[in-house]
This record gives sequence, C-alpha cells and structure tokens, in this order.
Amino acid sequence: MATMRKHYTVNRPVYSDDSFAEDHEKIFRLRKTPLDKVKEYLTCDSKRAKKVALSFLPIIGWMRIYRIKEWLLGDLVSGVSTGLVAIMQGLAFSLLASLPPSYGLYTAFFPVLTYFFLGTSRHISVGSFPVLSLMVGAVVTRLVPEDGPSANFTAFYNLTLYEKRVVVASSVTFLAGIFQLAMGVLQVGFIVVYLSDTLVSGFTTAAAVHILVSQLKFVFGLEVPGFSGPLSIIYTLESNFVQITSINICDLVMSIIIMIVVFIVKELNDKYKAKLPVPIPIEVVMTIIACGVSYGFNFEKKFGVSIVGKMVSGYESPIAPSVQVFQESAVEAFPIAIVGFAVAFSVAKVYSIKHDYTIDGNQELIAFGVSNIFGASFRSFAASTALSRSAVQESSGGRTQIAGLISALMAMVVTLALGFLLEPLPRSVLGALVIVNLKGMLMQFREIPYLFKRDKTECVVWVVTCVSAILLGLDLGLAVGLGMELLTVVFRTQFPRCSVLANISGTDLYRDRKDYVELYEPRGVKIFRIPSPIFFANIDFFKDKLVDAVGFNPLKVLKKRNKALRKIKALWERGDVQSTEKDLWGLFPQTTNMDQMDLPSDLKELPSKICWNADLPGNISVPRVDIHSLILDFSAVSFLDISAMKGLKTTLKEFINVDVGVYIASCDIYIQEKLHSCMFFDDDIQTSMFFPTIHDAMLHVLEEHEGMNKGYVVRTNIIFVDAFLVVMELKM
Amino acid sequence: MATMRKHYTVNRPVYSDDSFAEDHEKIFRLRKTPLDKVKEYLTCDSKRAKKVALSFLPIIGWMRIYRIKEWLLGDLVSGVSTGLVAIMQGLAFSLLASLPPSYGLYTAFFPVLTYFFLGTSRHISVGSFPVLSLMVGAVVTRLVPEDGPSANFTAFYNLTLYEKRVVVASSVTFLAGIFQLAMGVLQVGFIVVYLSDTLVSGFTTAAAVHILVSQLKFVFGLEVPGFSGPLSIIYTLESNFVQITSINICDLVMSIIIMIVVFIVKELNDKYKAKLPVPIPIEVVMTIIACGVSYGFNFEKKFGVSIVGKMVSGYESPIAPSVQVFQESAVEAFPIAIVGFAVAFSVAKVYSIKHDYTIDGNQELIAFGVSNIFGASFRSFAASTALSRSAVQESSGGRTQIAGLISALMAMVVTLALGFLLEPLPRSVLGALVIVNLKGMLMQFREIPYLFKRDKTECVVWVVTCVSAILLGLDLGLAVGLGMELLTVVFRTQFPRCSVLANISGTDLYRDRKDYVELYEPRGVKIFRIPSPIFFANIDFFKDKLVDAVGFNPLKVLKKRNKALRKIKALWERGDVQSTEKDLWGLFPQTTNMDQMDLPSDLKELPSKICWNADLPGNISVPRVDIHSLILDFSAVSFLDISAMKGLKTTLKEFINVDVGVYIASCDIYIQEKLHSCMFFDDDIQTSMFFPTIHDAMLHVLEEHEGMNKGYVVRTNIIFVDAFLVVMELKM
Repeated sequence: MATMRKHYTVNRPVYSDDSFAEDHEKIFRLRKTPLDKVKEYLTCDSKRAKKVALSFLPIIGWMRIYRIKEWLLGDLVSGVSTGLVAIMQGLAFSLLASLPPSYGLYTAFFPVLTYFFLGTSRHISVGSFPVLSLMVGAVVTRLVPEDGPSANFTAFYNLTLYEKRVVVASSVTFLAGIFQLAMGVLQVGFIVVYLSDTLVSGFTTAAAVHILVSQLKFVFGLEVPGFSGPLSIIYTLESNFVQITSINICDLVMSIIIMIVVFIVKELNDKYKAKLPVPIPIEVVMTIIACGVSYGFNFEKKFGVSIVGKMVSGYESPIAPSVQVFQESAVEAFPIAIVGFAVAFSVAKVYSIKHDYTIDGNQELIAFGVSNIFGASFRSFAASTALSRSAVQESSGGRTQIAGLISALMAMVVTLALGFLLEPLPRSVLGALVIVNLKGMLMQFREIPYLFKRDKTECVVWVVTCVSAILLGLDLGLAVGLGMELLTVVFRTQFPRCSVLANISGTDLYRDRKDYVELYEPRGVKIFRIPSPIFFANIDFFKDKLVDAVGFNPLKVLKKRNKALRKIKALWERGDVQSTEKDLWGLFPQTTNMDQMDLPSDLKELPSKICWNADLPGNISVPRVDIHSLILDFSAVSFLDISAMKGLKTTLKEFINVDVGVYIASCDIYIQEKLHSCMFFDDDIQTSMFFPTIHDAMLHVLEEHEGMNKGYVVRTNIIFVDAFLVVMELKM
Repeated sequence: MATMRKHYTVNRPVYSDDSFAEDHEKIFRLRKTPLDKVKEYLTCDSKRAKKVALSFLPIIGWMRIYRIKEWLLGDLVSGVSTGLVAIMQGLAFSLLASLPPSYGLYTAFFPVLTYFFLGTSRHISVGSFPVLSLMVGAVVTRLVPEDGPSANFTAFYNLTLYEKRVVVASSVTFLAGIFQLAMGVLQVGFIVVYLSDTLVSGFTTAAAVHILVSQLKFVFGLEVPGFSGPLSIIYTLESNFVQITSINICDLVMSIIIMIVVFIVKELNDKYKAKLPVPIPIEVVMTIIACGVSYGFNFEKKFGVSIVGKMVSGYESPIAPSVQVFQESAVEAFPIAIVGFAVAFSVAKVYSIKHDYTIDGNQELIAFGVSNIFGASFRSFAASTALSRSAVQESSGGRTQIAGLISALMAMVVTLALGFLLEPLPRSVLGALVIVNLKGMLMQFREIPYLFKRDKTECVVWVVTCVSAILLGLDLGLAVGLGMELLTVVFRTQFPRCSVLANISGTDLYRDRKDYVELYEPRGVKIFRIPSPIFFANIDFFKDKLVDAVGFNPLKVLKKRNKALRKIKALWERGDVQSTEKDLWGLFPQTTNMDQMDLPSDLKELPSKICWNADLPGNISVPRVDIHSLILDFSAVSFLDISAMKGLKTTLKEFINVDVGVYIASCDIYIQEKLHSCMFFDDDIQTSMFFPTIHDAMLHVLEEHEGMNKGYVVRTNIIFVDAFLVVMELKM
C-alpha cells in the first residue's frame, strides 16, 4: 500500500475470506458465554462486596464529600422552596388520584425518606407526578366507583368510600414498588430504552389531555363520577357537558382568574429568568390568597364551593396491602412502575450530565421500588418525580438530597400542625393550578408537524400512541404505542431497497447501476446488494427482488430443465436421438414423477453436459439463464435469524442447481460464525463463497470464467463437453 | 483497474463522497412518492379493468385452460376422497367449536362454494380447521356457558342453548370474514409475514395441547363445562381429574382402541406411501364400524355413551349476524381472521410452488372473507383449510377446485339424506379421531432443542408463544408471542458488537484490532465500526461504546477545558500570566456559569490556540485527547431514526468541539439523503465528512495530518500557533 498525495494505490492478492484467513492469522479470543457472565456476576470477594454495599447505599458516596459550609445553605433554601411546591402539588395531584388531598402530603414525605438513602440522583425531587397520580386514580375509580358498588374485597370490610380508595391506591403503589424492586434486582433497567422520545412525547401529551379533562369538574364545580376503561374520557366529557347548566359560577370565575394570573406571572418568570434571584412563587401566593378569601367570605356555605375540607391531622398507622387488589390491578401496576421509573430516570439523567456525576439505572429502580413499598405502607400513593418540582430544587441551589429531606420535613409540618390552614381552600383552585401547569405538556402537539416533515413513520408512532392513550386509557395506550414502535423497527427493514450494483469504471467501487453512466458490467455476473438485516419479515421480499434482478426464477428453470430431460429421454426411447456413446440409457433419471421435479438434475454419471442455452432437439425450450455468477453484497446485513437462514440456503441452492455460482461479499464475521454453528454449509454451499469485498469476488469470478464469455453456463470443476448435444442435433 | 491472475491492483484518486459525486455524475431519477403510488393504484383504463376483473374471479383463469379429458377424472376421485375426510372432520371439529356436529357439515359446504369462484389456490380444501374451530369455541363458551346465564343479547330471545351458540359462532365468523375482506381490499395481505415460522410453530403446538385437553371429556365420557379466559386449560384439566372416578369405561375403551388402530394404520400408510395407490381411509372405516357397533348394541341406552344424536336434516334459513356479539367478540374475531388466512395461505403457497402457478395473498384474503361472510349467513363457522385434508385432495389427483366442489356436494348429500346414518356414532369416537390427528402438531415440541442449539432468541420466542398461548388462551397468547417476536428484532440490534478497526498491513482492508497481529494503526486515528442500524433502543449504548473506544468523554473534556479557561483567566487577572499580544482580555468567555460549560469554547477571535495536550500553567490539568480523527464505519447501518439522528448529531458535535475530526465511511446513499432532508448538516457537520470507503477516509486523514504526528490536536483550517502558551509558560 502506498499513500500518494490525493491518490490511492493498492496492490495485493485477490482474497477470498478463506485465503485471507490463511495469510493473516486470527488471534484466538475466548468469548464470554452468558454462563461466564452469570458466574462473574455471582463471584464475591471483599472488594466487590464493599463496592456492592456502597452502590446499594449511594448516600455514603456523597455524604463523604459533603462540603457543609459551601453546600448546606443552598440545600436549605432549595429545600424550603421545593417544600412549598411539593405541598401544593401533593394536594393538587391527590385530586388526580381521586383521593383526599391530605394523602398527597404523605406522598411528599414518606418516599423521600428512603430515596434519601438509596437514590443515586442528587437533584430530583421525589414525590407525586401527575401522570402517575392519574394512572393510580384510574384503578381507584374502577375498583371503588362513586356511584355503584365497590369491588368485593375482604380488606374493604367496614370502610368508608375514601378509606377503601386509600387501600386501593396504596396497594397498587405497593405492587408497582415490588415490580420496580424486582426489575432493579434483576438488573433490567435497560428496558426503559424501549420508551423512545417519540413514544414518551405522545404518551405524556395524551396524559395531559386526560389530566385536563379530569380537572374540568373541579373548575366547573360539578359532580362527575369517575369513569374507567376505554373511552372513559368521552364519558367524562359527556357528563361535564350534560351538566353545563349547573356550573358553579364562583368556582369558574375563581379558576379563570387564577389561571390567567398564574399563566402571566409564569411567562414573566421565564422572560426575566436571568434577572430574578428566585422565580416568583405565584402558585403559593395565589393559594394563600384563595384560602384567605374563601375563609373570609365563607365560600363553602355562601356559594356551595367544594373545599379541601377536614385534613387528616398527623399520620395514620401503617396498613398491609390487599392481595385481592394486587390480583385485580397487576396489569395496571406494571405500567405505573415503568412510567414512574422512566420519568424519574430521564430527569435524573439530565441533571447528572449537567453536574457531572453518574447515576445508576438499576439502583434507581431499587430506590424507587423500596420508596414506593415503604410509602404505600404509610398510605401514600405512587411516587416518581415532577420535572417542574425538580427544576425548582436544582435551580434554587440544591446540591444533594439534603434539600429533598428538608422539603419532606416541610410536608410533615403541614401534615402535623398547619393542615387546618388549608381546609378552606377551594378544590377549583387546585384544579386550576393543575391545568395551568399542563402548558408544557400540551405544547408537545407541535411535535406532529416537526416529525411529519422528517420521518413519517415516527409521526405515525406519535399519533397512534397519543390517540390510543387518550381513547383507550393510559395503560392500554402505552402498550399499543409500544407495540407500534416495535413494529416500526421491523417495518423499516421490511421492504429494503435492494439494488443491482455495477463497477464504476476505473475504480474498485460499486454503485447502484441505475444511478451512474460510466459503468463496467462484465457479462454473466450480477451483483445484488441487500441493504438491511434479513429476518422472518423480509426474507420472502428479498427472494422476490433477487428473482426480479436476475430475470429468472431458478426453481422454475430447474423444473423446466428436468421436464426437458424427460422429453429428451422419450425422444431417445423412440430412437429419434442417438448418441455415439455406449451407455446413454442409464443417464436419464429413472423416476420422473412431479415430486422430483424440484430436485437438482441428477447428471452425475453423464459423460457430457447439456448446454441449456443452446437450441435443444425436438423443439424443447427451457428459459435461458444468462448469468454464471451471482455476487451478494452482505455489507449491510447486520443479522440473520433462523427463518432467513433457511430461506437463504434454499435460494442459494436453487441458484447453484442451475449452475449459477453464488458469492457473498463483505459478510460480517459474527454472521459467518453463526452460519457455521447452525450448520449452514454443506457440499453445495461452502465457505469458499465468502469474499472480503465485492471487488475481490468480482476478480475471482472473472478469473474463473476467463475466456468463457460466450454466455455459457458451466460449473467450475466440470469439463465442458457438448458432444452429446452435437450428436443429437445431427440426428434431428 | 487491472485484473491480474490472483492479484489486485487499484490506482485511483482518493475520493470523498463529495469529490466522487463531482467525478461521476449521478443520473437524476424521479422516485415515486407514496402519492404517485396511490394515483397509479387508482388509475383506471379498460386493460386494467379487465385485469382487475380477472384477478377478482380467478376461476376464469383456470377454467379457460381446463383440460376435461385429462383432469376431470382426477378431480372426481380426489373430490370423493376429500369429501369423506371433510365430513369426518366437519363432525369432529364442530365439537371443538362447542356446536352440534351437523354445523360442521355446513362448514364443509357453504364456504367452498364461494371459494370455488374467488380463490386463487387450486389445491387447498376449504373448510373447518381445528385451531380455528377451537378459537370460535372459546367465544361460544364464554358468551353462552353451559352452566350459567348466557350473555344478555336481543338476538338470543327465545332460543335454546345450542341455537344461541350457533348465533354466536356464525356472528364471530361473519366478523372475521369482514376483517379478512377489509384487509384484502386494503391490500395488506403482507402482514402475515409477521407470523414467522417459529411463532406459528409455537402457537400451533399450544393449540394442539388445547385441542387435546378439550377432547378429553369426550374420550372419558364426562360432563365438563366449557371454561374461558386465561388459565381455562387448568380449570378444564382440573374438572376432568376431579371426576376421574365417573369415567365411562365404554367410551374410554372404544377411544383407546380407535386411537391405537388409527395410529398404526397411519404409520403403515406413511411407510408404504410409494406402494399404495391411495392411503387406507382408516378413519372412515373406523367411523362406519363404530356407527354399526353403537347402533347394534345400543351403546347410548346400555352404557350411557354420548352419541352424535339427531342431526339437523337439510339446511336452515339464513340468519343475520348479531351486532351485540360483534361488540363482545371483536378482540377475538381479529386473531381468528389472521390465523385462518395465515394457515390457508401457507398451505396454498406450498402447492402453488409445487404445481407452478401463482397465488395472490390479497385475493385469498378477499376469497376467505367472502366465504366466511357467506358461510356465516348460513350458520357455518369459521373456515380455513386443514393441511391433512388438503394433502388428501392434492395427493389423490385433484388439480382444480372442481375437486373441492365435489367434496362440498358430498357434504350436502350427507346433510340432506344420509345424516341419520351418523346419529348412533359415539362422540368419543370423534374425540379419539381428533386426538390421534394431533401427532404432527405435538411433534413440533422437537423444535425446542433444535432452536436452542441454533438461536437462543428464537427458542425464547417459541417457548414464550407456546406457554402463553397454552395458559392465557390462543388469542392472547398469539398477541404475546407477536410482541415477543417484534421485541427480538429490536433485541438483536440493541447491544451491537461494536469494534475498533485497524488496517491489515499491506492491504486496503480493515479488521477488528483485537483479532489480528500484523496491523497498521496510525497515531491519532480511531476507526469505530457500528455493526447494526442505529435507533432509539441502541443510540445510548452506541455512544457509551464509542466513548469507551476512544478513551475519553468529549463532553467532559470540553467542560474541563472550559473550567481551565476560567482558571487561566483568573491567573491573568491576578497578573500571573502575561502575553505579548495586545488585547488578550477579550478572549475569555465573559459569562462562565455552569449552564454554559457544555458550549464549545468560544475562541473564534483568539490569535492563538491553546495546546490542550501540553502542560498548562498553574497546575491546571485537563484530560488528554490523543486522537485527532475519528472514522465511523457506517457500512452496516441500514437505517437511522429521529432519536438516533439527534443522538448522533450531539455526539459528533461533542467530538468536533474538542477538535476531533469526524469522518463517516461507507454510508448508504438513502441514509445520506434522509440526513439532508432532516437538516442534519450545519456549520460543524458537513457533507465533506462522508467517504466511500474506510481506506479513502484514512488516506484523507493521513494527508491532512502529514507531519503532525506529534499527538497534537488541530482543526484542519486553523493554523497551529502555540505562541500564547509559550508566553504563559515563560511567565510561570
């Protein structure tokens, strides 16, 4: 190899993969089998044990480097700000879960305690998350509807409606926690990669629509029963609009005012982000004002406004989850576990990159699993993180989970001592605050034109996920979206754009024959490029394209040839054809029923070969085969499955049976190894068919067929004799 | 290019994709947009109209070439043999559908009539198929259970149990027919490719287990209610074994004798296939004997044997399907439609290849859709084809659907006139015949070790499909299997084996650096091979691998460099560093808060560049970057999705920001086009980064960095000046 300025010179032997292996010895590498990996995973020594212990309690890691002087103040300030938001959101999101507001405060407290010790992210604020709350709410209203009999569980004995709901919510949370813990222990945290950005965007947009619809009843001050199951959103909307005349004007006006004020102030916060030391806590301000006004003017009595009402003061004794609820809600708890983790992990990842520390997906799963199990035992509902709350925690100076702990303590203070202050707060205010915070999520509708322009397939995934999550409910919609997304991966490779390549004159490069003019295409050679992996969904498509490209179906040609052989035999029997050879009779296949038509022509003992492309006696005609070699470009074939392997083997054999040599160029070595282990090779299909580049294969083919450019088809190691046919033709 | 014996010589310019495009003009090809395709599809002229009409009535095609003398006798003989089998199977499979046996005869008659006109396959025998019958039976027993109230449908008014069941079965069939017809009209027949061999094998094995279990009650002569839903197979088994003491010995003995005799004779048929003109119709013989014995000894009265009983004589008036049943069974009708079509199509394909005619998947969908709708109107249940019956039709000499028509006429004769002869037939005989025919399907369990040895992933798909279809029921099991199968496609590309390549000395070939000894690796260049498509599920994995391969995280390096810049600035302010340059102050970024740490160092106006790999003043240290170029081998990247594109762009920018040139080799032209249309390129990422081969890219890099092999990092068009640093170092 010589490197010249702007020129390329290579002079090396023509290699097949076999001859390359002879010249260049491969280093023997022992690959780890899955068993080795399991063994390695289970190996235990003191160092490893220490590491595992440390990774199980990430708090040890960051506590050791905690700089009290520099960080504590920031954590304190951040904890207080986050605490205010956490309390507000706790109250509001518990309405989404169809639970009394005080349970939202529990969710802002208990899960944080365990996450403090177990979590690897230092910046996320653990607690309620609207989508998750809504998903819990769907189970709650399904099992304990407002207007109808609750499910018949032993755990419900002697309980009020809301007590039953709390049992359901905490049991579902407990189960989701078990799922998370199990996934963490089994180290399968990677499954969140299946939730692509597109999917998550469509899903959360749908969730925003659900949240919006679910809060309408609070804004309107209406009594709307909780619907569950597919199309529940339609029924909820219907129920709202049927009652449109009984809207509580006081609720509506108050909600609209709050929404407008909060919206404007938030925009200002955003605009003057750089200039404000902390964003104006407008939600807290509005809540306090609303509380005061509601108490002062006695809204509840005067205008029939629905208020937060009696808060449970202090904490209640822990409860055991109900196994019957587990059985009824397993299908819903699983998506709760997945979504809860996926959201928290993606937020955590953003901050970990920004602040340059590592987070561990599996440890996060364990942390959230334990937090949810612990929280559920104390009646809190499913916890994850809300992006808005985490943003407050991080931007107001929080550096570690100390800030989270402080926010939890604030929630505790409200629960234990100040809860009564929130009692006059109208529920419509909470609803309005939830709705106004949906802006960001609803803005994701703008993804549709963006994706449409760039990638139609992903646009379809977005729309299908969103529509099915809206109409079928979040859990089912997520499943449909996931299925759709997996389908797109298959779909992208299902109809590959196969092409016939030709040599660009004067180079060793090969390009699509239709794209260029100055091409060199030697007679009798076809180069076919497969631009994708081959597997069950596209093997037939690829076969059809190959048949199109070469211009004949090898199986049909073989059948026609075998039929022609029979006819020639009949001619022979009638004495129309004679041969100078002594024992021609034994040459013809003895049994020629239809079943054997697709076996290769059995001409082993023939002293001569029939030249199929010449004129045959007795007006027998068979389709012409005008290629002698087929080169398959495998450079983009990244995997083969069993179906593809079977199909490929059949196809290759069909070509070999009609005397077309098949060569494979640029095949991945792992695929070659797999072909070996699957017993792909036999007498017809040999490893000598592999070449490192198309050019090597082409040079090899040209050499083999030197001087054979008359369009004849021959097998490499068979002497070409046409005596037999000459004799027959003379006789005719 | 010169071709020498066993040698390879290439002398050509070093190309980048851009310079290649300059030298070799591409032909402009107008590609069809999806809109064009729709237009083309909707275009209509007389020739097309004729073709469409012909394709809609395939009978015209084969009727025109029908050779009465040669083919009619074969069709007659075949029709009679098939008819006998069809009658037997019709009776037996109607038990699987939980319907009275006579409806099986309807299924052997009505759907055949329409398929005769519409079907493209000439050899399959249309009629009942055990798996499909069982799937219909699952809906029937769910909506009309034996021991419990039926669903509350208006169509059920005043009907007996079996009449209700017939309504349900025919409505489900009607709906499945609508699905099939719709899929045919929408030309989406290709979806059956998603049912890979592995999936179908696992699914049918599970179906065989279900069939076996469902027939136990007939063999044992027990009353077992029909269970439905997940785990119903367990309940059915339980119910059988609980009643084990009340087994009807007469039924059991008769069944065992029949199973043994039929099994042995079938084995003999198989063994002496070549010598027997037609296989011994042992099932027909045993049925006749059983009928005679049962009638002669009055089994029903004497031993309490359950017999076929009163057959409906003649045909009943057509019925309209029930829309309420549609609503309740849509989820089950869809898999029925898919499975029915998939089985028939795969059998038809085998014969079409053998007998060399074409079948059309979409026309087959239309044919089966219409047949099921027509049949359902006359109370028959879902029709497809049974492999065993089609094998009889083809092997006994059937050449066209005339044979099918004759078999239908035989079923009609039995329905109209001879049905009474079958009345004394014990049901246990039918059950035994069904069970003994399961041998082939149950033998598929042997796939497990076969697949396990070859491809663990497919083995998992098989086992998951089979187990979930057994435990969850066929419809849900099929869905789970399908999801699993799609997941494997993702999974195969999710953890690609990325590798670092190096030049094989003396060639233009590049191989995994770990595999070979004689390698040439120029300093400062890394070649990274991506061996699979890049999409949402593996973009992060690929990024991690790339960071591992180059040995540094470019984002972290950039942050460290920006921090170092701040420190240098501080040193400067304190006067510890001075420069000969006049206006160095303006060089440093003015705002240096944390958020801007990941922006590229803004050094545009710098008169000098900092040599980051040299020692910096003030003990500032940044990680060393010891490569100046990164070549990505994209030859196996067959597609990119939006997530991958975003991720790739970010990664490339990160490398470019730390002055590492990135080059992409062997990128597919369609991917390049897509990158263009998605606005992938900007000031940093330019089309000049693409090269046709790794070797071209490598030669380009070597040329660019000629004489720069001191490990320094430079950007191509920036003059390397280290005056600034020299000054600073002097001052220190």
